[in-house]
Amino acid sequence: MPAYDPNNIFGKILRSEIPSHKIYEDDVALAIMDIMPRAEGHVLVIPKESARNLLDVSTATLGELIKRVQHVAKALEKAFVADGLTLHQFNESAGGQVIYHLHFHLLPRWEGVPLRPPGTMADDARLAEQAEKIRAVMTPFAG
Amino acid sequence: MPAYDPNNIFGKILRSEIPSHKIYEDDVALAIMDIMPRAEGHVLVIPKESARNLLDVSTATLGELIKRVQHVAKALEKAFVADGLTLHQFNESAGGQVIYHLHFHLLPRWEGVPLRPPGTMADDARLAEQAEKIRAVMTPFAG
Repeated sequence: MPAYDPNNIFGKILRSEIPSHKIYEDDVALAIMDIMPRAEGHVLVIPKESARNLLDVSTATLGELIKRVQHVAKALEKAFVADGLTLHQFNESAGGQVIYHLHFHLLPRWEGVPLRPPGTMADDARLAEQAEKIRAVMTPFAG
Repeated sequence: MPAYDPNNIFGKILRSEIPSHKIYEDDVALAIMDIMPRAEGHVLVIPKESARNLLDVSTATLGELIKRVQHVAKALEKAFVADGLTLHQFNESAGGQVIYHLHFHLLPRWEGVPLRPPGTMADDARLAEQAEKIRAVMTPFAG
């Protein structure tokens, strides 16, 4: 597996070199709106640790990161009155990975509503609205 | 969300009421071959805790469980000389969940090889072979 390359989009977002719609942040993780959402409220949860994917992240960070994934999942369920949630996590190109900084996709789901095909950019104002909607229901992370 | 119902297939496997091809087990988790594999070496990692899905599992178990997911992922990459790995985790029917005991799907991937469509039972002897292949490369879990 290639080494972590800090010159990736999430690395730049973590360093505030490019903007994002943040919905949660602490010392371990950042959660942001996916700009090419495959569902209403599609969020990414990424570690602050420089990890390429599931295979090289430290066990300590991974164990804490997934708790933030769960925390965000509960907020998404509430904010979007979702019937369910789908979690995807891709490792290397063959596994579906496009950006080489570990990230968990959280997709709110509703009965009868399929995932959208990948690759369509969302309207920025719409993402800002959704981020606000999520932040409004987010409770403090209890650990 | 409905309460956990112990009368599900993974509950029965955890109580040894029905057989499975085990590749890893400790006090927190069990990893078994998926009997309807969507890729060669498709494995499920499930907690021993009675949890319906990501939304109700305890944070303590979840944090430990994902470390076992990573541990198994590394073994799959090695055993099947995979180019990548895809992780899926489904919550409620709308989210793709079929069996209501939390489970993470780990799917070894190779460049140019799509996932198989769902729903086809694997040959039992073939699953036994694959489980043996994974166990042969599995290192002790370091925590």
